[in-house]
Amino acid sequence: MTHWHLARGYRFSGIVSGLRNEVDRRDLAVIVSELPAQAAGVFTQNQVCAAPVQLCRQRLPRADARAIVICSGNANACTGEQGYRDAERMAELVASELGCAAEQVLVASTGVIGRPLPMPVLEAGIPRAIAAVRDDLTSFQQAAQAILTTDTCIKVATRELGLSVGLVRISGFAKGAAMIGPNMATMLAFILTDAAIAAPALDQILRRTVADTFNCISVEGHTSTNDTVLLLANGPGTHLYGDDARQFEAAVHDVCADLARQIAADAEGASHLITIDVEGTRSDSEARLIAKAVAESALVKTAIFGADPNWGRIVSAAGYAGVPLNVTELSLWLGDMLLYREGNPLPFDEAVASAYLRNNREVSIRLRMHSGTGRCRFYSCDLTYEYVKLNADYTT
Amino acid sequence: MTHWHLARGYRFSGIVSGLRNEVDRRDLAVIVSELPAQAAGVFTQNQVCAAPVQLCRQRLPRADARAIVICSGNANACTGEQGYRDAERMAELVASELGCAAEQVLVASTGVIGRPLPMPVLEAGIPRAIAAVRDDLTSFQQAAQAILTTDTCIKVATRELGLSVGLVRISGFAKGAAMIGPNMATMLAFILTDAAIAAPALDQILRRTVADTFNCISVEGHTSTNDTVLLLANGPGTHLYGDDARQFEAAVHDVCADLARQIAADAEGASHLITIDVEGTRSDSEARLIAKAVAESALVKTAIFGADPNWGRIVSAAGYAGVPLNVTELSLWLGDMLLYREGNPLPFDEAVASAYLRNNREVSIRLRMHSGTGRCRFYSCDLTYEYVKLNADYTT
Repeated sequence: MTHWHLARGYRFSGIVSGLRNEVDRRDLAVIVSELPAQAAGVFTQNQVCAAPVQLCRQRLPRADARAIVICSGNANACTGEQGYRDAERMAELVASELGCAAEQVLVASTGVIGRPLPMPVLEAGIPRAIAAVRDDLTSFQQAAQAILTTDTCIKVATRELGLSVGLVRISGFAKGAAMIGPNMATMLAFILTDAAIAAPALDQILRRTVADTFNCISVEGHTSTNDTVLLLANGPGTHLYGDDARQFEAAVHDVCADLARQIAADAEGASHLITIDVEGTRSDSEARLIAKAVAESALVKTAIFGADPNWGRIVSAAGYAGVPLNVTELSLWLGDMLLYREGNPLPFDEAVASAYLRNNREVSIRLRMHSGTGRCRFYSCDLTYEYVKLNADYTT
Repeated sequence: MTHWHLARGYRFSGIVSGLRNEVDRRDLAVIVSELPAQAAGVFTQNQVCAAPVQLCRQRLPRADARAIVICSGNANACTGEQGYRDAERMAELVASELGCAAEQVLVASTGVIGRPLPMPVLEAGIPRAIAAVRDDLTSFQQAAQAILTTDTCIKVATRELGLSVGLVRISGFAKGAAMIGPNMATMLAFILTDAAIAAPALDQILRRTVADTFNCISVEGHTSTNDTVLLLANGPGTHLYGDDARQFEAAVHDVCADLARQIAADAEGASHLITIDVEGTRSDSEARLIAKAVAESALVKTAIFGADPNWGRIVSAAGYAGVPLNVTELSLWLGDMLLYREGNPLPFDEAVASAYLRNNREVSIRLRMHSGTGRCRFYSCDLTYEYVKLNADYTT
């Protein structure tokens, strides 16, 4: 964490509010922008979406965001009209501390679905969280800690760019762990930059970026009610354009790809990070459909967990992805080992293939066709006893 | 198994051929129709489909089927051109014993993908299997045993109908266990009747029946390369029509629904059979999409395993099914308990809900909307340690 340069002009806190009934568990985070920030968001595609998602959708994009408040332990989803009023109240509590309008505050939540938010806890906690904000790395990390659920570690990423207009920084943090389907997940990510760029441009950049970063990860394919990625830019002065804007977008992409990969690597119970590359399809979206089918197959995921090179499960998952497939063009690699070439199985050393899976925490699957130049990189994880254990007893 | 009346005019065997390298495991089954039978088939929707599926697709529907040969332990899938020649050879071996044309013989396989069939074992085994065929219940059960993979029990069903043309019987057997996605599965089912009905009519009946029986079950949603349902009718005389034909179709539906439910109940590692009823959608197919999303959610399945009444996972799965959803119309029951009514969570006793899941092997989920008269009943199972264990080490 040396040479970690936080985006300037933001303050952070992550406190123990008591939402979780755990005395030492941070569960409430606040991000405050000193200046009004341009802001954009991308949200879950689930039609059952949480109250804070509904609230942010109404408020974004906008040019004057001042803060984001995030609670963990309770998703405020499937909570009816009361849930929406509670999300509004969270924003009001922040706004009254900052002396801004409630509409300038964004809200996110993650945790169990279907339980009313314990508002007395938040009424007391939010003013404390606002009072605690600082612009140092420790506070940033505490905010990153406070949004976690079953994650085992914080996910943070930062980039510094030398543009023609000067130095620009992009800093982000995220949480994942489970209920991670592509099309995002109960994943939350907050990307902050001190660049100057208008909300409509931010919105476009964020949509393009999410499509091949946060939308190309899967834990079990269950699209959450609460997925939220927010991007704030509080830089003063002339908005970025031309080559500066292109470099900026590439750096945002890097930060998001870095965070997405960290989410897949720290998936609930996972013992393997699986990188799935699909190439040679007619389009990138066809490649993504195939990668997603492989990424979400419980049979592929259990085989990787068991270090079982049962490659037929991979090829057969590709076959039901809903993409026209010419089997005689299809080849499969596991790591460097070519196991299936243009429709025919190749002899291979099962002991070597099994050892590859057993001895590497990060493993790769590559599927190649010859129908075009489409490609996709997708991250998944294995399905383990620990995943079942964690999810067989989450609420109770 | 008393009063079990087998369809007449069929002989069965299930022998230990040695395909599995287990001295006491039946692995090769044959069904012989004494008379040429009308025959229809429905197969996997996976574009990567096994050689025997390709072979049956070419040969069906037809009016003169004489036999079906089925091997377990090897799927003969992803085996290239050699695999197709091997499937053809299996049919030839049967045909030469029966003195019929090879085209009159159908083939099915289930087991590991991507390994060549050990043809010397089948060259020796198929003549033995043909020599062993009998028309008694024991032989029928041995055939049902020989097609199993990780199933823990045979799946059989029968119906006897008194039609205007006389008594008609329909007897079927199936296997399931895993790689069970809707749109069938590595499931095989063989339905035999002594009714008289032409192959094109059989084909229509089978397609309609499979749509809401075998295509409404899921273990983990991985559509297999080998799914096969075959329906043979060898009755002499005038083909059924009118009310007789309708009663016959209803009985075929009963037999298939019975077998489909048995497959879901005996899913790999399952400790719960989950019945999912969705109603009030604009169409049956919308109801099926929602039921399928719930059925395949690892989070729903682990919650049921853990007797955790985490109902938000069910509602959120409905939300990403790809069906337009008005949340304020959506209600959810777990067993008899109404937990979510038209978009609002209801207070409930978690201990009672958890006990319902813990104390019942068969549990029900009901989702209701108010958009139309569409409905679907879907069967699924829970996701357990045992499922992970079984699938983490299947080939090796």
